[in-house]
Amino acid sequence: MSAAKSLSLSSSIQICRIMRPDDANIVGNVHGGTILKMIEEAGGIISTRHCNTQSGASMLDPSPVQQDRCVAALARVERTDFLHPMFIGEVAHVSAEITYTSKHSVEVQVIVLAENILTGAKKVTNKATLWYVPFSLQNVDKIIEVPVIEYSSVEQEEEGKKRYDAQKMERLETKERNGEIINPVVSPEAYTVGFSQSSLIHLVGPSDCTLHGFVHGGVTMKLMDEVAGIVAARHCKTNIVTASVDAINFHRKIKKGCVVSVSGRMTFTSNKSMEIEVFVDADPLVEAARGKYRAVTAFFTYISLDKEGKPLSVPPLKLENEEEKKRFEEGKVRYLQNKAKRQAEKERQQ
Amino acid sequence: MSAAKSLSLSSSIQICRIMRPDDANIVGNVHGGTILKMIEEAGGIISTRHCNTQSGASMLDPSPVQQDRCVAALARVERTDFLHPMFIGEVAHVSAEITYTSKHSVEVQVIVLAENILTGAKKVTNKATLWYVPFSLQNVDKIIEVPVIEYSSVEQEEEGKKRYDAQKMERLETKERNGEIINPVVSPEAYTVGFSQSSLIHLVGPSDCTLHGFVHGGVTMKLMDEVAGIVAARHCKTNIVTASVDAINFHRKIKKGCVVSVSGRMTFTSNKSMEIEVFVDADPLVEAARGKYRAVTAFFTYISLDKEGKPLSVPPLKLENEEEKKRFEEGKVRYLQNKAKRQAEKERQQ
Amino acid sequence: MSAAKSLSLSSSIQICRIMRPDDANIVGNVHGGTILKMIEEAGGIISTRHCNTQSGASMLDPSPVQQDRCVAALARVERTDFLHPMFIGEVAHVSAEITYTSKHSVEVQVIVLAENILTGAKKVTNKATLWYVPFSLQNVDKIIEVPVIEYSSVEQEEEGKKRYDAQKMERLETKERNGEIINPVVSPEAYTVGFSQSSLIHLVGPSDCTLHGFVHGGVTMKLMDEVAGIVAARHCKTNIVTASVDAINFHRKIKKGCVVSVSGRMTFTSNKSMEIEVFVDADPLVEAARGKYRAVTAFFTYISLDKEGKPLSVPPLKLENEEEKKRFEEGKVRYLQNKAKRQAEKERQQ
Repeated sequence: MSAAKSLSLSSSIQICRIMRPDDANIVGNVHGGTILKMIEEAGGIISTRHCNTQSGASMLDPSPVQQDRCVAALARVERTDFLHPMFIGEVAHVSAEITYTSKHSVEVQVIVLAENILTGAKKVTNKATLWYVPFSLQNVDKIIEVPVIEYSSVEQEEEGKKRYDAQKMERLETKERNGEIINPVVSPEAYTVGFSQSSLIHLVGPSDCTLHGFVHGGVTMKLMDEVAGIVAARHCKTNIVTASVDAINFHRKIKKGCVVSVSGRMTFTSNKSMEIEVFVDADPLVEAARGKYRAVTAFFTYISLDKEGKPLSVPPLKLENEEEKKRFEEGKVRYLQNKAKRQAEKERQQ
Repeated sequence: MSAAKSLSLSSSIQICRIMRPDDANIVGNVHGGTILKMIEEAGGIISTRHCNTQSGASMLDPSPVQQDRCVAALARVERTDFLHPMFIGEVAHVSAEITYTSKHSVEVQVIVLAENILTGAKKVTNKATLWYVPFSLQNVDKIIEVPVIEYSSVEQEEEGKKRYDAQKMERLETKERNGEIINPVVSPEAYTVGFSQSSLIHLVGPSDCTLHGFVHGGVTMKLMDEVAGIVAARHCKTNIVTASVDAINFHRKIKKGCVVSVSGRMTFTSNKSMEIEVFVDADPLVEAARGKYRAVTAFFTYISLDKEGKPLSVPPLKLENEEEKKRFEEGKVRYLQNKAKRQAEKERQQ
Repeated sequence: MSAAKSLSLSSSIQICRIMRPDDANIVGNVHGGTILKMIEEAGGIISTRHCNTQSGASMLDPSPVQQDRCVAALARVERTDFLHPMFIGEVAHVSAEITYTSKHSVEVQVIVLAENILTGAKKVTNKATLWYVPFSLQNVDKIIEVPVIEYSSVEQEEEGKKRYDAQKMERLETKERNGEIINPVVSPEAYTVGFSQSSLIHLVGPSDCTLHGFVHGGVTMKLMDEVAGIVAARHCKTNIVTASVDAINFHRKIKKGCVVSVSGRMTFTSNKSMEIEVFVDADPLVEAARGKYRAVTAFFTYISLDKEGKPLSVPPLKLENEEEKKRFEEGKVRYLQNKAKRQAEKERQQ
């Protein structure tokens, strides 16, 4: 009983804050990136805390050996939908809970709620699943063993295991796609890929990093959302908002002092949505030896809104070569799969 | 029972976040000001939420009349002790609870806890009591009536009443002290140099610096523009924008941990522009040995705009002594030189 | 051919980001300082990257000797015009290119473009020229030799040389002017009230305010703590931390668009603590009608810490007139009252 209680204390957390003007676009919609950053902050706190709890030690015999302290780094975010827009002045509540642990990774499930403190209205805006891996602080290339959590039932553990295996396989598959680059286009035609393609550069600052000098995964996701948003706005010239983010895999850590380049290009448009592929490259300015490397890639989906917040039609993407056509077809497959999944879920809930 | 539960939901809140380098001084101690700001954010959320709940409305008949929405503004903070230091990388937990309501004010009690997520150690760092007053959003000079909270006992309510009366008396007493001012400046005449002259102090933070501990030149220039803009706005009381910046030379580097003083004074006015001279001094607080030094100087030119963005005439600068007249003449020379240069360039381009 | 291409890769950069509410004034015009800061960030990245490339090393024989890593520091910015205003929601594109290198300096030319991503309109807002000097990371007083860039023509190099010589002469000329100071203050004696007294000015930004345009009380308290901390550090030149804050009363609200002046002066020292009185004045810049008013006052208590975090003795405050003596005695009363209160509480808890 008291063990269960101490578990619940260490395996859940709630962070909340008021959304400020800088968290949102000019129409007042909070950026998807702001929400992703808060989600990751909650996930990072709870999994770092968990991985530093003495799994073996009892109260009578606390830490007989010197423990190897660790920090949990974001390895993967599962596909995330933005169910409702959030606005400036609302309070965002982010609740995170550890739902599965493998030997070397922690699964965190997060729910985000937007509260209007004037009207009292509350809406669930996001549900997210994140995977963290704990690195030793004495040796950042060493992965620490994760203390086991207690499950309320055998089924709960088995389902977690299934999710773990599924994401592991997907992680391996995405590793190869990391080679591609975006090249600038001279005076592109409207609605082509080159027309909206964008990139930004960010010099990593101290507040972007953990105490141990690695960029928070949430900071990277916020930059990715910023670029994807610019690509989407350039394409359709309207108010745009993040609708969903496909699974993101963090293959390599980004260190303090790097310059991060984030590039985005449109890959697919449906009648009411745009898919944007985003690449993150890290360039350790001063250490010439290592050179630039691809750190993350992901797909963001945006929708276009009119002044009343109703979805608008999106101008179709003009494809100019075989590569773009291939990517468009791949995007279509993802689009149809997600549509089918959402449909299935709806039916399951009825 | 369910009423009590809904009460407890609306009358307590917990906000938490990781302490970042920008929240602390160079030794890693979180600034008291960072903690005070978090305390007030929690207090503001909880009391705004409470004051917008319909105390009278029942679930069957919710808000028959249009409710007057309000926002709670901080009226007073009781004496607060900082019991333990908090450090970068720790998670600050701020829990706020409404503990008393008078007709027009809300008492919020806050506890701040620092959690080291690596060792699991937790310490109470602050206890604070804040008083809020709710203002109508339709008419900010109107104070709204505060919904009553439920007390667990008569004693609890009576003690709250005592605290309320005590703070009310103290508030009245301090009102008079507010008249005093530091350095009773002889009120300068409008449009003189002394009238608009301004200076600011900035404590250099981690994000202001390169990885190697020197202030980015761009950070210094941003502070210089901020002071120059305040000088210009004080002079002409309109919307002002930067028109140009003369060459700036950075003769000495500014190091992490310095206090930077930036001062500006108006030197020249033409019909449609103002020239402001800006000085930057660096004071390495802790290294007593070296002392303050002049790091940069520059001239900024501002113009004044009306609501449509059209340039406005600028009130001429009133000169009071020979020095000011000399600087004005020098400014005029720069102004005419730049004007001639721009003219020559225009002709060259035609 | 391939050399030219690799040159162009390492000698040009583009950074871009969306302009946020905090980057601009209340009318929506982006601050000149925000643009200057972005320009310098681009310049710093490109010149640091360039100075860390091995000019001599070939691909076959990369870095035979351990290279001396360096960081480029801004030495000078040429006169810069702001050709067009930029607005919140626009994307700023900053392109930087290295255009000349001398033995110890790098010239960077920067173009800033504002893109309205809704209309597609683009405008050049700035052209700037910056000079950087690379410092060794092992020894910040040592200037590194700059790798030579390739010029497309002899004329290009010669013109660069001319610009280099011209700015060098101007730098020398301005060095002397740097001696001047505003309001030549009679240097106050150490440990007097005047010695540590400080004040700062803060232009209220959107993120400092509630949705309804009033400054959050917490933002004001953070500024107050910042000034009090500077006063304390100036007095004792050590690491100082906030120990407590006396009750603070917020008599008047502060509105969006105000300039806030926060001033602090030391009023009392005990053996191990300093009391600092802080005043907050609000100046509604544009509404000429109302004028400056006192918004808040408070007393902050600080202690001085050594490197192990142990409290240090504080140099006693030197009092120079009757007013200061009176304030010191009042501070002593508060100090003794608080001490007695804490003592009583301790006994009550035992």
